[in-house]
Amino acid sequence: MTITITAFDRSPDGGKGLARDTRVRWALEEAGQAYDVRLVPFEAMKEPAHLALHPFGQIPTYEDGDLRLFETGAIVLHIAERHAGLLPEDANARARAIAWMFAAVSTVEPPILEMVVARFLEGDRPWTARRKPLIAARIDERLGQLSRRLGDADWLDGAFSAGDLMMVSVLLRLRMSGMLEAHPILGDYVARGEARPAYRRAFDAQLAVNTR
Amino acid sequence: MTITITAFDRSPDGGKGLARDTRVRWALEEAGQAYDVRLVPFEAMKEPAHLALHPFGQIPTYEDGDLRLFETGAIVLHIAERHAGLLPEDANARARAIAWMFAAVSTVEPPILEMVVARFLEGDRPWTARRKPLIAARIDERLGQLSRRLGDADWLDGAFSAGDLMMVSVLLRLRMSGMLEAHPILGDYVARGEARPAYRRAFDAQLAVNTR
Repeated sequence: MTITITAFDRSPDGGKGLARDTRVRWALEEAGQAYDVRLVPFEAMKEPAHLALHPFGQIPTYEDGDLRLFETGAIVLHIAERHAGLLPEDANARARAIAWMFAAVSTVEPPILEMVVARFLEGDRPWTARRKPLIAARIDERLGQLSRRLGDADWLDGAFSAGDLMMVSVLLRLRMSGMLEAHPILGDYVARGEARPAYRRAFDAQLAVNTR
Repeated sequence: MTITITAFDRSPDGGKGLARDTRVRWALEEAGQAYDVRLVPFEAMKEPAHLALHPFGQIPTYEDGDLRLFETGAIVLHIAERHAGLLPEDANARARAIAWMFAAVSTVEPPILEMVVARFLEGDRPWTARRKPLIAARIDERLGQLSRRLGDADWLDGAFSAGDLMMVSVLLRLRMSGMLEAHPILGDYVARGEARPAYRRAFDAQLAVNTR
């Protein structure tokens, strides 16, 4: 049985690696698992066939035998639980790594999503230029807290884990904005994530789709 | 060893059960686990002692022996993994329940948080009145998708799970807004969650703190 994930037929970012299938590809590469990709055209996202897989009409999804999963965090956790390399063996360290996965998507990413929404869904509104610095300040507060916790460590809690995979992926959304430059600790952290061979393979695979 | 969680000394909602300690209390009640609560005054949230427990200076946290955890989703998952009643035994059903936990905090809650931010952090800005319908439309899109998936089922995937616990908790944020009224399937779903004895005990416990 082969794992199959879904990805955008054409990612809105043109292959910068910010679409969430990159996170799942990265986890599969860290775990040494081969996978197939089914590309979903944008206009098919909200059609019944894809909604049966993903109730919110997004990518990625994950199919392996009888199992069909949606939600990037859940897919990455599922992969991490079944293969070595993404979660520590010690039970407490494992729980803390999962806490960083949730922190990535439910504490650090929401203000970043607010900026994405401001740019793409409210970019033509008269208030957006004045709102952006307010959103940036909320993002920056989280970055400061994260940077202070990371300090001079390489990863958030001991060895590289699925928590780092998710957090680096969330922070990568900020690189184009220059917001990481005020937090060199985080800039270096993101660079360490990107330097992992498994990340490079995941990035290259999504880029190949978007430049074909 | 006793489990200790943290909660607001005075919740900003005055005891409506929307502070995230209610989610952890609910999980502990479903699991039949006794717990202690340490109340954190608002001004102590960003001080070193609390930041050591929670890098983003929030509540709740969870302590049990050597384990210290933050992030509500991770705490609820940790409780669900160690006690019966919150995750199915079948491995695939378990993975799907965890997917609903992530969906609650990373897909359904972000637009709801945007409304909270608009109301409390940008309530005095001239654009907020015109932005609210845009945010409401984004929330409503998610509610429609969720409602269509739930259909005539009682819970999101078979028996009640930690996925429902998290999703009901996220939807409860909307009750005061009246937004659930357009989605009676979700209104009934939330009511089923609230009717659970474990939820009632959790709600009453946080209310007692906030009305003492």
